[in-house]
Amino acid sequence: MTHAHRSFVREILKVTEDPSIISFAGGLPNPKVFPVPAVARAAEKVLSEAGAASLQYAATEGFRPLREYIAARYARRGVKVSVDEILITNGSQQGLDLIAKALLDAGDAVLVERPTYLAAIQAFGLFEPRFVALPLEEDGVSPSAISDALSEHSPKLFYAIPNFQNPSGISWSAEKRTAAAALLERSDTVLVEDDPYGELRFKGVPLPPLGLAPDGSGPASWAVLLGTFSKTVAPGLRIGWLCARPDIMESVIVAKQAADLHSNGFAQRVLHRYVTDNDVDGHIAMIRRLYGRQRDLMVEMVKTLFPPEVSCTKPEGGMFLWMTLPEGMSSMDFFDRSIREKVAFVPGQAFFTDGCGANTLRLNFSNADEAMIEEGIRRLARVFAGMRSGAARAAEAKA
Amino acid sequence: MTHAHRSFVREILKVTEDPSIISFAGGLPNPKVFPVPAVARAAEKVLSEAGAASLQYAATEGFRPLREYIAARYARRGVKVSVDEILITNGSQQGLDLIAKALLDAGDAVLVERPTYLAAIQAFGLFEPRFVALPLEEDGVSPSAISDALSEHSPKLFYAIPNFQNPSGISWSAEKRTAAAALLERSDTVLVEDDPYGELRFKGVPLPPLGLAPDGSGPASWAVLLGTFSKTVAPGLRIGWLCARPDIMESVIVAKQAADLHSNGFAQRVLHRYVTDNDVDGHIAMIRRLYGRQRDLMVEMVKTLFPPEVSCTKPEGGMFLWMTLPEGMSSMDFFDRSIREKVAFVPGQAFFTDGCGANTLRLNFSNADEAMIEEGIRRLARVFAGMRSGAARAAEAKA
Repeated sequence: MTHAHRSFVREILKVTEDPSIISFAGGLPNPKVFPVPAVARAAEKVLSEAGAASLQYAATEGFRPLREYIAARYARRGVKVSVDEILITNGSQQGLDLIAKALLDAGDAVLVERPTYLAAIQAFGLFEPRFVALPLEEDGVSPSAISDALSEHSPKLFYAIPNFQNPSGISWSAEKRTAAAALLERSDTVLVEDDPYGELRFKGVPLPPLGLAPDGSGPASWAVLLGTFSKTVAPGLRIGWLCARPDIMESVIVAKQAADLHSNGFAQRVLHRYVTDNDVDGHIAMIRRLYGRQRDLMVEMVKTLFPPEVSCTKPEGGMFLWMTLPEGMSSMDFFDRSIREKVAFVPGQAFFTDGCGANTLRLNFSNADEAMIEEGIRRLARVFAGMRSGAARAAEAKA
Repeated sequence: MTHAHRSFVREILKVTEDPSIISFAGGLPNPKVFPVPAVARAAEKVLSEAGAASLQYAATEGFRPLREYIAARYARRGVKVSVDEILITNGSQQGLDLIAKALLDAGDAVLVERPTYLAAIQAFGLFEPRFVALPLEEDGVSPSAISDALSEHSPKLFYAIPNFQNPSGISWSAEKRTAAAALLERSDTVLVEDDPYGELRFKGVPLPPLGLAPDGSGPASWAVLLGTFSKTVAPGLRIGWLCARPDIMESVIVAKQAADLHSNGFAQRVLHRYVTDNDVDGHIAMIRRLYGRQRDLMVEMVKTLFPPEVSCTKPEGGMFLWMTLPEGMSSMDFFDRSIREKVAFVPGQAFFTDGCGANTLRLNFSNADEAMIEEGIRRLARVFAGMRSGAARAAEAKA
């Protein structure tokens, strides 16, 4: 299964390398939001001020001023985190690998949302756990499903993306967060709370992390929080972080040191310089407005051009819509036909560990510009209509 | 054992963070060789020319022009490698982690040189192999030791650093390379050939890699070659590479994708710009001259100030000397006393998987400037003399 996932995703990425294809497949930010001149100024400043120190080997934990900045940002959200509870990683993806390496043994159970983030299945999958997928409802995973899974499987990890989940766009409600936290508090399971999209909220009020300590301060003893600058600044710098209590952190740092000694020190300093010298909140607000408009456009186009039996989420933030075709239709088939019309998306099956989701698909709305979104959804709707009338004709012929 | 290694090294690194300490402990390049202004020009050019593309998500395999450059550099040494046989990693350290993840199962045997590189023990150690250490003679590991180990342990991997090994400074002779290659060719063991120091040769003629295909072209089907820009350009960029045939490469790429999607794209482009726009060979020649002088000075100081029963290697390149104290003396004890005099090194025991080497130690000669080398070795000799006379007095008192 995991192997099939890998080759499938690589196939899709290969297909979408063709620049003539309108791709809603990847999870890429829109490159026009990357602060190129500001990063250039930051790089220049780092090299002229810190000089050789910025190119030397550095601490495994990461560049301390950057870790302080991350702690201060948590504090603004009311989450009190000490600098020692933060490790810099190569994007939040590496957080998954390090946690798996530090905590997972072959055969351990890992709870995931259903559907869940593909590359998490890949990262954990290399350590050969048993995946147990808990259905994602409109507002998160139900407490009874979590409770049953905890007692039945004694899982080592529970992996969740409570804000604007990839692939579904779903966010957990405050009630479901509180209920899940109460259950995890009493279990030996470690929550891995991934939050790459939390800052990309178009409306509504942000909720605190699920994995908070009971007194509401730092991460809970049973939680690891992951974060990243990939969606708020730029993914090419590969800078994310992992936040955990000292006992978990200790083994994660050992894994990080073994993995690559430390993350790119130059990029860490450039990023730190960038966030220090620029209006980051203003920058993120600009990204929110842009992606919000792109989401509105894509949702509107889908509503207008697809028949009502095709449903589509309208998430309050993030980068993805989740579309459900009528029961019995295959999104793989839809993909094959769409790619001939030079439009790509990810068939939903890739996000399930149990082969389900054959009639679902994920659409990214952040990467393509508005004109491309219009044209791409138009083509998809045309392909869909063709599939439907073909199916109708086939049914008639049979009858 | 592995756990002891970890905490030990972190302890040492913590101690050496004190700027008043003369440290021969780390494996750090001398920061004065980092091409800071040239890297600044490269960064400026990348951002003004490639712009947002340099900050976007990128291919797992790495930035293709940089991979082409690496292939061309191999070609100059007579090793024909295709671009698809090269994967960019976060320093060569990550190559160890990816290989272990792709190929190692718990309980597999891993051959290592004795002594061997500490962080390789750490990287492989997380996957719980059995280490089998083969004594490193003056010119490599003896064919009979390799042959016996191959048939007795059917190891999955053989990890070796044939040029200016860390920690010993030893290089393999042409005879021992040829003999090892012939044995590995007939086995199912994969050679992991680490070569961080090969370009830092002060005299003599470079030898081709041990893990070459029989026709002398690319890597052998049973070999993985690791390389890095950490010692020739700068370690802070965290850019190394892994070179292997497609069947091994395939599973390594899957592991890389799961680990962190891809290496820092901005740093890869900056490095590529740097090597394209600058006289890299001239730069490396400058490093060679500097480190060669520093080695000469350190060897000379040791010879002059220590008694003849203390032996010390004089490697033809690299960054390390390996010192052997008289039998029965403890380099841990020597370390504890030296640190009080504010000089650090790494006690040799850390580089053994079997607890041996209690009277050995590693001295780095690349990082400290000449004045520091003189002063540091002077202090070490004084501490050593004190230990000896203390031991003599204790023996007298006993008698």
